[in-house]
Amino acid sequence: MIYAMDLAGVAIFAITGALLAGRKRMDGFGVVVLAVVTGIGGGTLRDLLLGVRPVFWIDDQTYLLVAVAAAVLTILTGRLWIRLEKALAVADAFGLSIFAVIGAERAMSLGATPIVIVTMGIITGVAGGVIRDVLAREMPFVLCGELYATAALVGATLFWGFTRAGLADPWSIALAAGACLVIRLAAIRWRLQLPIFHLKDADLSK
Amino acid sequence: MIYAMDLAGVAIFAITGALLAGRKRMDGFGVVVLAVVTGIGGGTLRDLLLGVRPVFWIDDQTYLLVAVAAAVLTILTGRLWIRLEKALAVADAFGLSIFAVIGAERAMSLGATPIVIVTMGIITGVAGGVIRDVLAREMPFVLCGELYATAALVGATLFWGFTRAGLADPWSIALAAGACLVIRLAAIRWRLQLPIFHLKDADLSK
Amino acid sequence: MIYAMDLAGVAIFAITGALLAGRKRMDGFGVVVLAVVTGIGGGTLRDLLLGVRPVFWIDDQTYLLVAVAAAVLTILTGRLWIRLEKALAVADAFGLSIFAVIGAERAMSLGATPIVIVTMGIITGVAGGVIRDVLAREMPFVLCGELYATAALVGATLFWGFTRAGLADPWSIALAAGACLVIRLAAIRWRLQLPIFHLKDADLSK
Repeated sequence: MIYAMDLAGVAIFAITGALLAGRKRMDGFGVVVLAVVTGIGGGTLRDLLLGVRPVFWIDDQTYLLVAVAAAVLTILTGRLWIRLEKALAVADAFGLSIFAVIGAERAMSLGATPIVIVTMGIITGVAGGVIRDVLAREMPFVLCGELYATAALVGATLFWGFTRAGLADPWSIALAAGACLVIRLAAIRWRLQLPIFHLKDADLSK
Repeated sequence: MIYAMDLAGVAIFAITGALLAGRKRMDGFGVVVLAVVTGIGGGTLRDLLLGVRPVFWIDDQTYLLVAVAAAVLTILTGRLWIRLEKALAVADAFGLSIFAVIGAERAMSLGATPIVIVTMGIITGVAGGVIRDVLAREMPFVLCGELYATAALVGATLFWGFTRAGLADPWSIALAAGACLVIRLAAIRWRLQLPIFHLKDADLSK
Repeated sequence: MIYAMDLAGVAIFAITGALLAGRKRMDGFGVVVLAVVTGIGGGTLRDLLLGVRPVFWIDDQTYLLVAVAAAVLTILTGRLWIRLEKALAVADAFGLSIFAVIGAERAMSLGATPIVIVTMGIITGVAGGVIRDVLAREMPFVLCGELYATAALVGATLFWGFTRAGLADPWSIALAAGACLVIRLAAIRWRLQLPIFHLKDADLSK
């Protein structure tokens, strides 16, 4: 069940990568690279930092296959996605929620401290998108857009809290991911943002 | 023999990094950094993902020395490279070929699955150049240029196939790297590209 | 003592990340991310490359807490930093010095070769700033600015030399970090730079 949701998250994130590649006029290979990096980048960074080796997709090639398949599908169906943009944003929120909770769960199962658990939830949820944006030369969305990492933070924190309170894993996961999903969807709907921190260029010269 | 080719690949890639640094007006240290990162970046990422630790150049400092020497040489001989641009493109194709096959070989020797083997061949061949382009604020060449990663993919796949078919390592390596080299050189000569995937900005607003 | 200086380095680097985020109009979360990445990025890359796992801040969450606290403090005190810009540059030089020496010390304690020791000193000192600049879409300062990595190189090399010469750790650290600090401060004061390597675009067409 978790596994299926994890793969669904990879597919969704891979599609967002492929679509950005399409806007940047990349070739077929560039589309696949950006899709794969977006789909598995967050979990890869998490595993590297936690010292899990090899990283998760080395031993289970289903992840790579799903990401590549999602990229190919996006290329074949290209313009269809224009109509599906809103559906995609909702799906992306779903991917974020499941990744944030899975990231927290992995760190917790390795005995990490609470702050590291939450950090790994955030990294798993957002790092793929950050790498995608850096490769495509976009300002990373997560650093200045609507509530996104904040939703991951809440989801990961709740998962930790529920598990500590003795809740069984399926419930912890469902409730924490659900809260993350609600926050992200509300942020999309009402354009909720964290306050911007703005220093004028004139303020700092270096 | 493989070791000598590997070092030659590092030197060639390091030179491409140093030349890009020169076009970006970096200082002496920036040139060395970009050269080193381009030369050993692909193999480093491969080792991190496969869980090989420490990464290959920690235990054998020849790699670092070769990359730094290549950078210094490039600075000293700067303008000479203008005339050698075509020779450099051919040399770069040689570096790509040997790196793609060595990457596949490393993954195969660790018992990886076929898809991971091919992925590691591609990563070893292209990741150094991607990091180089990101640090120099260029759109990564490999994501939108002529057939490059595709050549690495073919080389890595052939190496896997030949080895599975029972061919001895020297033959597998020579034939697979040769095929990769031919594809890359043909791509340079006739400007072969994968089709571009293009979505207009108007299509997707997010 | 070293531990306290290490934490001070993290805090200082985190503040430089937060200030850059402010100039880029990032939201509250973006500020924290850029601060954390700048503060712990160098040491993280060092640990990954050396095969230390998990990376240093997983087992000691003080590092994350200090970086986040520095980011929050920067947001709260925002404009104050304008007056403190010079003090901050001095503090940054201090952070660079301690990180370069600590990075060399970590590599040396793992039995690395001299070149790797120096490389790890440089990476620990500068990689956090490079990642910061890449995420904020700035040309990495360290690749083209005043003597910075060169100071780290000298500090790491001296630490190795002093230790080999039989000097006790506290003395090696103090002297090596002191030399790095003096070089960096002199570079700021008199705008010392390495020579620029410049190839005109017209020289190389690719």
